[in-house]
Amino acid sequence: MFVLGIDPGLSRCGYAIVEPASRGRGKAHALGVMRTPTDAGVPERLAMLQADLEELVNEYSPAVCSVERIFFQKNTKTAVSVAQASGIALALAASRGMKVEQYSPSEVKSVVAGDGTAGKTAVQEMVQVLLGLPTPPKPADAADAAALALCYLAHDPGMKFAQRDAVAISSPDTGSNMRTSRSR
Amino acid sequence: MFVLGIDPGLSRCGYAIVEPASRGRGKAHALGVMRTPTDAGVPERLAMLQADLEELVNEYSPAVCSVERIFFQKNTKTAVSVAQASGIALALAASRGMKVEQYSPSEVKSVVAGDGTAGKTAVQEMVQVLLGLPTPPKPADAADAAALALCYLAHDPGMKFAQRDAVAISSPDTGSNMRTSRSR
Repeated sequence: MFVLGIDPGLSRCGYAIVEPASRGRGKAHALGVMRTPTDAGVPERLAMLQADLEELVNEYSPAVCSVERIFFQKNTKTAVSVAQASGIALALAASRGMKVEQYSPSEVKSVVAGDGTAGKTAVQEMVQVLLGLPTPPKPADAADAAALALCYLAHDPGMKFAQRDAVAISSPDTGSNMRTSRSR
Repeated sequence: MFVLGIDPGLSRCGYAIVEPASRGRGKAHALGVMRTPTDAGVPERLAMLQADLEELVNEYSPAVCSVERIFFQKNTKTAVSVAQASGIALALAASRGMKVEQYSPSEVKSVVAGDGTAGKTAVQEMVQVLLGLPTPPKPADAADAAALALCYLAHDPGMKFAQRDAVAISSPDTGSNMRTSRSR
């Protein structure tokens, strides 16, 4: 069973294909960013991203898609294109019958790094540990996509025992917080 | 040659298939709104919208797609889903090789109703006139989609003579303004 994590964006869209392993950990089968040329028009770039995501989904047939939830509290320059990219990811996942979950950045950080305000480096390092990678994944968008997939695994009822077990070893309190921060 | 106008939205997505006619007018071959059930999840609703848009594009093979440009000045409740819907429309149009243009609401109102601050009723009435419809199109999202298609026709170089002709009859000044307000 594969979980597809997506950190949506038009210049850089992070993606990760993660297979559940024991103790809330996972194995990364694919991890990286999809880039679109900044000199192309937005419609063309969205179409390229859609084609890249379709190719990835065709290759791995993930059962679940975990996507960053978009908010517009911050009126950043990229807010529109990030939302547009997320729409494409969500529609693709739903049209392929995948289970789709969305998590806010703070939820993901809280679950993966134990702190909803964790910085990029902390998330990259925890993703490295949880996926057993030789180095922290870069760029941050790739790590964020992997963190989204890992966040789903931590919330997945089927992973509960493994997760509780993993948490009991490190810190039972964090484990309790993790479950109460669930958004579903 | 067909122009597809899209007023993106998840609860109601306005659409119009317009064929150019003389004097900046057009003939509507399809006009309405696509709705998705509010009790379904956002990913599923985006996938439904995508399927509906694909069906429309398959039926008419429009050469051009005119989509409302999204801004996030207003932090409305629906801002995210509107942007997500627009992303799906833009990607679909680009992936089918359509020429894609985006216009702001004020550009569309300025071109179609002669006033960038025109109200819904004024736009609906002008769309009725320009498309030769028996009644003003409803709901407003359908009229807005038609106005987007008509806005493209007014900007299209191939339509310049017809447009100038039509404008000369009503008001030469408006015609001049229309062309200087072009965003391309």
